[in-house]
This record gives sequence, structure tokens and C-alpha cells, in this order.
Amino acid sequence: MPDTPLLDTVTFPADTRGFDAGQLRQLADEVRAETIDAVSVTGGHLGSALGVVELTVALHHVFETPDDILIWDVGHQCYPHKILTGRRDRIRTLRQGGGLSGFTKRSESEYDPFGAAHASTSISAALGFAAARDQKGGSNRVVAVIGDGSMSAGMAYEAMNNAVEATSGQLTVVLNDNDMSIAPPVGGMSAYLAKLVSGGTYRSFRRLGRSMAQHLPRPFRDAAKKAEEYARGMVTGGTFFEELGFYYVGPIDGHDMEALVPVLKNAAAITDRPVLVHVVTQKGKGYAPAENSADKYHGVVKFDVVSGKQAKAISNAPSYTKVFGTELIKRAQHDPSIVAITAAMPGGTGLDLFGQAFPERTYDVGIAEQHAVTFAAGLAADGMKPFCAIYSTFLQRGYDQVVHDVAIQGLPVRFAMDRAGLVGADGATHAGSFDIGFMGTLPGMVLMAAADEAELAAMIATACEIDDRPSAFRYPRGDGVGVEIPERAAPLEIGRGRIVREGTSVAILSLGTRLQESLKAADLLSARGVSATVADARFAKPLDAEMILRLAREHECLITVEEGAMGGFGAFVLQLLAEKGALDAGLKVRTLHLPDVFQDHDKPEAMYAAAGLNADHIAATALTALGIGAARGAVRA
Amino acid sequence: MPDTPLLDTVTFPADTRGFDAGQLRQLADEVRAETIDAVSVTGGHLGSALGVVELTVALHHVFETPDDILIWDVGHQCYPHKILTGRRDRIRTLRQGGGLSGFTKRSESEYDPFGAAHASTSISAALGFAAARDQKGGSNRVVAVIGDGSMSAGMAYEAMNNAVEATSGQLTVVLNDNDMSIAPPVGGMSAYLAKLVSGGTYRSFRRLGRSMAQHLPRPFRDAAKKAEEYARGMVTGGTFFEELGFYYVGPIDGHDMEALVPVLKNAAAITDRPVLVHVVTQKGKGYAPAENSADKYHGVVKFDVVSGKQAKAISNAPSYTKVFGTELIKRAQHDPSIVAITAAMPGGTGLDLFGQAFPERTYDVGIAEQHAVTFAAGLAADGMKPFCAIYSTFLQRGYDQVVHDVAIQGLPVRFAMDRAGLVGADGATHAGSFDIGFMGTLPGMVLMAAADEAELAAMIATACEIDDRPSAFRYPRGDGVGVEIPERAAPLEIGRGRIVREGTSVAILSLGTRLQESLKAADLLSARGVSATVADARFAKPLDAEMILRLAREHECLITVEEGAMGGFGAFVLQLLAEKGALDAGLKVRTLHLPDVFQDHDKPEAMYAAAGLNADHIAATALTALGIGAARGAVRA
Repeated sequence: MPDTPLLDTVTFPADTRGFDAGQLRQLADEVRAETIDAVSVTGGHLGSALGVVELTVALHHVFETPDDILIWDVGHQCYPHKILTGRRDRIRTLRQGGGLSGFTKRSESEYDPFGAAHASTSISAALGFAAARDQKGGSNRVVAVIGDGSMSAGMAYEAMNNAVEATSGQLTVVLNDNDMSIAPPVGGMSAYLAKLVSGGTYRSFRRLGRSMAQHLPRPFRDAAKKAEEYARGMVTGGTFFEELGFYYVGPIDGHDMEALVPVLKNAAAITDRPVLVHVVTQKGKGYAPAENSADKYHGVVKFDVVSGKQAKAISNAPSYTKVFGTELIKRAQHDPSIVAITAAMPGGTGLDLFGQAFPERTYDVGIAEQHAVTFAAGLAADGMKPFCAIYSTFLQRGYDQVVHDVAIQGLPVRFAMDRAGLVGADGATHAGSFDIGFMGTLPGMVLMAAADEAELAAMIATACEIDDRPSAFRYPRGDGVGVEIPERAAPLEIGRGRIVREGTSVAILSLGTRLQESLKAADLLSARGVSATVADARFAKPLDAEMILRLAREHECLITVEEGAMGGFGAFVLQLLAEKGALDAGLKVRTLHLPDVFQDHDKPEAMYAAAGLNADHIAATALTALGIGAARGAVRA
Repeated sequence: MPDTPLLDTVTFPADTRGFDAGQLRQLADEVRAETIDAVSVTGGHLGSALGVVELTVALHHVFETPDDILIWDVGHQCYPHKILTGRRDRIRTLRQGGGLSGFTKRSESEYDPFGAAHASTSISAALGFAAARDQKGGSNRVVAVIGDGSMSAGMAYEAMNNAVEATSGQLTVVLNDNDMSIAPPVGGMSAYLAKLVSGGTYRSFRRLGRSMAQHLPRPFRDAAKKAEEYARGMVTGGTFFEELGFYYVGPIDGHDMEALVPVLKNAAAITDRPVLVHVVTQKGKGYAPAENSADKYHGVVKFDVVSGKQAKAISNAPSYTKVFGTELIKRAQHDPSIVAITAAMPGGTGLDLFGQAFPERTYDVGIAEQHAVTFAAGLAADGMKPFCAIYSTFLQRGYDQVVHDVAIQGLPVRFAMDRAGLVGADGATHAGSFDIGFMGTLPGMVLMAAADEAELAAMIATACEIDDRPSAFRYPRGDGVGVEIPERAAPLEIGRGRIVREGTSVAILSLGTRLQESLKAADLLSARGVSATVADARFAKPLDAEMILRLAREHECLITVEEGAMGGFGAFVLQLLAEKGALDAGLKVRTLHLPDVFQDHDKPEAMYAAAGLNADHIAATALTALGIGAARGAVRA
């Protein structure tokens, strides 16, 4: 083996096409080391990336990217891919403001033909590219890489079900089976894959080659084909995929370059039917601290490469996520009807804590938000109190179920919407921007947003008591503000906000955690001689009409503040004011909300500044509306 | 056989529990006749109902409804179920205002434990009931009936994948396989089911009984079990479901009471694993005109029982649906990059016409809206012009895909949103109420609403030209207004509305087909001496800021009108006016939209009146805002 790093000779995948197996192995080792080093500086999704190092090298070696289309599901495993596709020089800017995205992203590289971040979209997108190729008479190949966890989502099934009909040419789906998505996976499909893998030693390269070769001559005589399918089912058990029309190959060792390369070559050459290549990998592979960690370093902050020790930040306040988990446990201790549902995110939602306390009352349904919502609706219909904890952005996956199965039937499902608002390094795909609008427009829904962790506790208590209709409460990523949480939080009066600070000229009406900035804005205004009332709306639905109309009546200027898109809380307030004639005689009303763009990943403070949702901007908006002072800069202390 | 109608002795399912096979057969015949007669009067979903007559009778005979939970997927096949569950006396009010719903509905009967209308929710809901039973230590049984078409939706797969883990007790899923949802079904699952059914004669009652009995003693020794599974796979091919953890039984003849009853009895007794009973039925069974019709009388208007001739209404204008199909064909003749995608609704969306003209450019992906959207995104990413035609209410199923795969990436997918607004007899579950909000809040989206069929043609032309971002256009159920459509419609300027009638005092700003009522309202106002401008916004996004600000500036009162929920167009207009300071000095502004309730099915005119979206109400709102006249009644001519 030469001493020169091979990686230094590789800028683009084309540079690897002439490599032999030994060189590919060496390259993989170097990419792994580079990945570990880079993520130690930036933090990020390390475990998934380490699991696909060999697969990444093999795919770019076999397929003629970027002419051939390579689509990574979720995309958080793409760091090795970025290193090999012209972005090694920027790899230490991963997830930093202005730097590389932590996911695949079309605007970043022609080697990212389709961006991702949410799970289970890759087969659908790949089919789109395959169909486009067929339409245009092209000859490029298309390959999607999807994890076993992502296979639990219905979307992946819908795409597989459509594969044979949507394309008449080549399509390769690589099932990256690491028996683990973020948490250990659940469900029948997971058990099925485990059975395949445990079925014995992986098939040797030679036997695989033979098996693949058998597929090439066609057509089989029907009877022979059927017999062969079932015979192969006995060996590999892949009939599930075969029944959807795929050729199934595997399972094979995803860290064995000498198995990967020839199998992928064979798969890429098959054009009469889609091929599913079942690859077994190990999350965190090749880095001992990751391999030995329970979550395989799924997501890490900066860490020391030698020890693996992560530089966890110290916080004075618990995360909202933890507050949710802890408070729900308190409630459940006194109420046996409380059950909790997560869609493959027990840790992310705080339901890992609940699950430890009440394993029999915790349901992890897999990456399956649609099912999660309607399953919760069924539980509610039979008298249980289901808390369905789903990130704001992922609840978009279950939106029709929220409308059709929960809201129309008025069933008391409780939605805990974590990660509401901006999310920093995860960027636009993970931002919880739209929930106020898409939940708040539903008749009968109760929609709350917590201003701090004590408010969150109160809203959980409130949701427990709402038995005659659906309710939802939103709260952001990150830590609370450090206020005390009562031992037993009292429920709120539904549809009642609160005045936090009394003033005379300007009313700042906040929904959610921007309350702190609203209070700071009131200070800034006070310094300019403008007296400001600050109110916490608490409810986006039903609105506190009495309070809002009073604010409108008694102030010259009313500013709403929310960490959500247009068409949300501020819009609801305006519609109320219009309906009641409260705008007829004039009101300097402004609605501050997230800007009407998808904000790229950055530090939260920078994102808030760009969004115009900090104290400076709130105060400046008021002053401008009042015709006082000139620019925003004027109020910067 | 006695001459007395057995049905006259049956008010509730308990009345059938003592019946023998002969009586059950007779009852089924009578229920079929009653169903045909009722639907001949009301119109409705006849074909599906006729296909499940025997199954309905058998289920209510075997299961102890309503204590046992029976959930019908979609619910449009529930007319026989309603006849047998205390609602026969009202069956001729189906889908009429104030009458029975055309679907299952919780508020209607305790025999409808979970309502439906959208496809593929039943297994999730049933699992919720099963889990609730387990939590409460109950002993009731749970059964879901789902069609083969509904099985193409990912949601059904998500639920099956979760079944073994979500309940530790009895759960029966009846797969009602009629090889046809609304259109003939598509996809790998459909082909797979066809293979099972064509595999030979259905298994006899005796052999089924034996096969079921084998399941009861447990546990099997692992090796024996696996061998048995595969052996059975050779016979019935049901390994797909077995691999997800179900016992599979079938296929059996769903019109053969002597097969159905014992099989269901056995299935209901199995508590160690969920059971899937594969039943084969014939849509339209037992009514020759339905059996002989291509769509098996899926949805019919009133008809003559003897001839089967339907009383189709005569219209002077084409339906919006047909205009869409026709216009898209025109465009596609000149643009080979146009392709069309439907999620199992070729007829409903007008893409049946497109499919006849361009079979190779038409994709029916099955009931799979999530996949449909991302598949379209993939096509767009590779340079095609995909038109994704999905009813407004069903697009909720693909909402996350619209956000994550289309909008964030700015891909030029074109969404044709049919059935936007109220839909009459199909009721709340099918209303397209929320799309203006959930689409219009997405950055970069172009969102149009057609005021008439010529406008729809222009919007299709516009969407063809929007190549740098996603676009959507909404249009209602039903017929156009009769205006002429140009041979080749010209595209609109993006973000420009139009003034339709010039006035001075009141501005009525309409989005969509309520423009006609807005013009009538202007007439009513004119009769009261009030001069009204009427504008057609055309775009909900981007708004025509210039026009809207001018309307605000030049009128004392501004009224927005839209056929959608709060948080939509009117809210966007208010946020624009607030941002621009156009409310500071006072403007009598009102936003008219759908009421904040789920409106039950009724005649469209009655629904519009209840919604306050007709000319009378628009005019009255203006007069009240202006302080002229008193009540709404005042303007009724």
C-alpha cells in the first residue's frame, strides 16, 4: 500500500473509477478518518455516515455520477459522499452558518440531484428520475439508498408498489440495513429484515454473482420463474420485495468492498425490473467510541477524536423536550388513561423517559406519522388519553390524518409539537414553521404555544383535561429559560391569554417563546419613552378575543410576534380584529412572523436576527409604526 | 323459504345472531334489494355497497357489534351496514341535507365507532381500538374491512407493520379484494393479489377450517413454523402479510355465506396474532346494470331500478374537471415535457382524457398521494413538467412532500387542486377547505384560484410557463359558468389580479368562483345606492400588492371573499395591509371565508348560505360595515 493518501488524488468520483479493490478499500479507510475528524470539529450525524463509507465509495466507483443519479434517503449519512464529490475542502463547515448543509442539497452540488432530510422519500424521487429518463429516451442509471428504518414509512412502500409501472428501465434501490434508524427500529418489516440477516452467513460474492447473472436472460418461463422465486425465498427470504415486483439480492456485507462492487455492477446492468440490493452495515463502523455507544453517535456535538468525549454544553435550564417527558410522567402517575405515541423518535421527543416509566403505555410505531395520528385517534375514540409527540415538521406527514381522523371527529388526541420554529443547524427541512397555520385553521382545535417551561407544564396539564376535542401545544428546540416549574402545574383556562407587563402606547402580543424578546423590546421602547404592554397569548386557537380587543382599543399600536410562518397567529388576530370592526377606525397593527423564505441552517441567534424576531426588530417595528425615530439601528442599545 | 321479508324482523345486528346460513343468505338478498332501491332515490356509492352485502351480513352475524368494533375503510360501502344497524328507516335520506351521511360517522350511530371517507385509515384506527382494549383489559373484538385499492396507500402498510407490536390481542383485518377501487387498481400489491386470486380455485370451507385450526395451538416450533409458512406460501402466496406478522387466510369467496361465516368465526377467535382474511368480492354484485358498467356504478346519481338508467343532469357548461383534462391535452400536444400524475383518480381528475391522448405520459400511482408528490418532484428535478392532479382534500395526504420535496427545493411541480371548497353531498371529509392556507404559506409557491372555466384554462397555461418554482391552481367541484374558453388560452402575469367592475365606495376582492356572487352582491349594493368595485385576485400568492393597496386606498370598505377556511386568502391580504400600514388610518375591512366549523353534507346552495358566502351575505356585510341598513334581510331582493 502506498503511503500517499489516495484521498488527496480524488476530488470527484470520476477519479476513483480506475481504482482496484485494494485502492477502494484504502480510499474508504481514508474517507472514514476524514469524516471522523471533520465531525469532531463541526458536530453532526456521525454514526450514519460511518456506516456507509464503503457503500459510498463503491457506489461512486460503479455508477457514473453525476450523470447517473444517486439519491440518499434522509441525507444525514452523506458526509463521505460530500468528501468524494468536490466538497472535501468545505467539509469542516458542515452545519455551520454559510457552510455545507448537513443533508444533501440540490443548490450545493450537481452530485446532490435531490435533497432530503425527512425520511423515506428517496425511492419516490428516484422513480421520478427514472421515469424522466424513460420519457427522454436517456440511458443514465438511477440508484436510491434507503435505511431499514425509513422502510417503515408508508411512503417507501407506496413507491415500491409503483416501481414496476413507473419505469420500464433500470432502477437500483440499496436497502442499507443497520438494524437501527435513530432508535432501534420497530415493526413487522424490521423483524422480517432481521430474519433475513440472521438466516445465516451472507451469500458469498461468487454465489451472488451467479444469482444475479440468472436474472439477466429473460423472459423466464412462468412456472420456472415462480418455482425459482419461492426457492430463493427459502434461502434469502426476499419474497416481500419480489412480491412488489423487485429482484431481491442479499443480504450482503456492506463493509466488504469485494462483495459490494460486483453486486452493484450487476444490479446497475439490470434493466427489465427494479432491483433491491439488501446491504448490511454497522452504524458507527470503524470508530470505537461510536460503535460502543448506545445511539452509535447518531447525532453528536464537537468531540475529541481520541477519547470520543463530546463537548456537551452546560445549561441552567432543562430542555423543553425533557420537560415534556417529565411532566407527562407526573400526569400519567395519576391518570392511567394517558398513553404516549412516538414515530421512531423516543429520545428526540422525551418519550424515552416516559417509556422507562410506563413501557406498556408507550407506543413507538416506527417512522409512520400517518399511522401514529390515526392510531391515536382510535385510542381516543375508545376513551384513552393519547399524547402524540411529533416534531412540528414531521407532523406535516400526518396532516390529513389530523384533519380527517382527529379534527372532523372532534377526538381528544393531544399533539405535542416539539421543534416548533427555527432549529439552527438542521436548517429549513427541520424548521417547524407551518404548524400554527395548518393546525390553527382546523375547526374545534385547541392550539397552544408555550412561552417558557412552566407554561409548557401548564399546557400539558391543560391538554390532559381537554376531553371533548383535539388539542395541540408547540414548543421549541433547546433549553427553557430557567423559570421554576411547579410540582403540579395547574391547567390553563382555555382561550385566555395573560398580560405580562402593563403599558399604554404599544401592545406587543406574543405567542410562544419570543415572549422573552418581546419583554426586552418593551425595555428598549421604554428607553425611548414609549410605554409598552406585553401580553402572552398562550392560545392561537381559540383566541382570547376579549384581551385582544382590549389591547387594540387601548393602544395606538399592536404588534403580534410568533415563531411561525405568515398565515398563522398574527393572521388569526387580524381576522378577529377585522370581523369585530376593530380596524375600522385605524390601528397601527403589524404581524411579525418568520420571513416568507426557507431559511438556511445557521446559529439560532443569526436566524432570529435574519427573521426579524428579536427585541431590536420588535421595538423598531413599533417605533416605525408610531412614526418615532427612523431606522432599526436607532434602538440598538 | 318464507315469504315474509326477514329484513322486517331485523332492526339491529343482534336480531341476526340466531340466523342459520339459509336465513343469512335470504337476509343478504333482501338487503341488496333494499340498497339498490334506496340509492335509486338518493344517488350514491352503489357499486361498493353491493359488493359487500354478504360480508356485511356475515360480519354483524359473527361479531357482537356494537361491543365488538367494526370499522369500514373509506366508508362509502356502508349502506348495507346502515340498513342493518337501526338506520333502515332513514336510508332514503342518504347524502341529503339533514339526512344520513354517505360514509360512516361517529355522531350518527354507536355502530359507527370510527368515521371514514378518505381511504386506508381503518387498520390504524382498529389498532387504536385494540390497544385501548388491551390497556383496559377488555375482551371486545376489533375488525377492520379494507379494500384492495386502499392497500396501495402507505398508511395501510404503516399500520400492518405496527400491528404485532401495537396489540397483544385479537385483531381481524378483512381484505375486501374486488380488484378495483374507483378505477382499476395499479401497482405491485395489486398484481400480487391478482396472482393469489388467480392461483386457482378458492380454498374450500373445509380446508380453510383445518388451516385456521392449525393456528390455534401455539407455540409452533420455529423450524416447523417456518416450513409451514413457506409451504402455505406455495399454496396461497400470502407470505407478504405473514412477513408483517399476520396470519393470512384466503382467498375466499366473499359472496359465499357458508365460507364467510365459519372463517370469520375462526378469525375472531384468534388472539395470539392479527389475522388477515382475504375475501374476493365483485363490485356491483347482484345488479346487472352495475355489474355490466365499466365503473361498476361506483358513484351514481338517481336512477331507474329496472333499466339502471341514471338521471344525469343537463348542463350548459363543462365541468371544471373536464376543462382541466381538455386544456392539459391541448398544452401537451405542443409540449412533450408535460406529464400527468394521478393518485388512483383518473376519472375524478379528468386525467382519464389525458391518459387516452397520452398513455405513456400519464402516471396513475395508486392511492398514494405522498409518493405522487415526490415522484412528481423527481420528474421536475430532471426537467419534465409534471402536473399532479389531486383533490384539495387528498393533497393533505401529501402535505409534507409538498413542503419538503417540492417547495423547499423550489421544484416546478404543478398542482391541479380539484374539488376546492364545498362539495355538497360528500360532506366535510371531502371539502377542500384548507388548501389556500397550507399551500399559500409556503415560500416560493404560486397559488391561483380560477373564477370561471376560462380563467382555469389561463391558469393551466400559466402553470406551464412557471419553470422556476412550484405552482398550484384550485377550482371547484361541478360545472363552469358557461363562459367561452379561447382556443389557446394566454398565460396570466404572475401576481396580477384584475378589476372586473369599477365602483367607488366598497371593494369586493374575490378569489375563485365566488366572483359570480360578488358581482351579484355589487348589484344588490347598487340597488341600495352603494357603488362597489369588484376585483378578481386570481393569485393568493404572490398577492397583487399594488392592486390591493389601491383598493384599500380608494374605498371605505374592503371585503375579501374566498371559498376556503380562515387563515387563507383574506388573512394574507390583511397581513399585507398591516405590513404596508394600510390599516393605520382605518379601513372597514372584512374577510369572508368558510365558517370555522366542519359543515355537514347538504345541497351546495344551502351550504353556501350557511357559510355566508352568497351575494346576500356579501352585500349585507358591506352595508353593516358602512353602517347602512340593519340586517342581512334588508338586502334580500
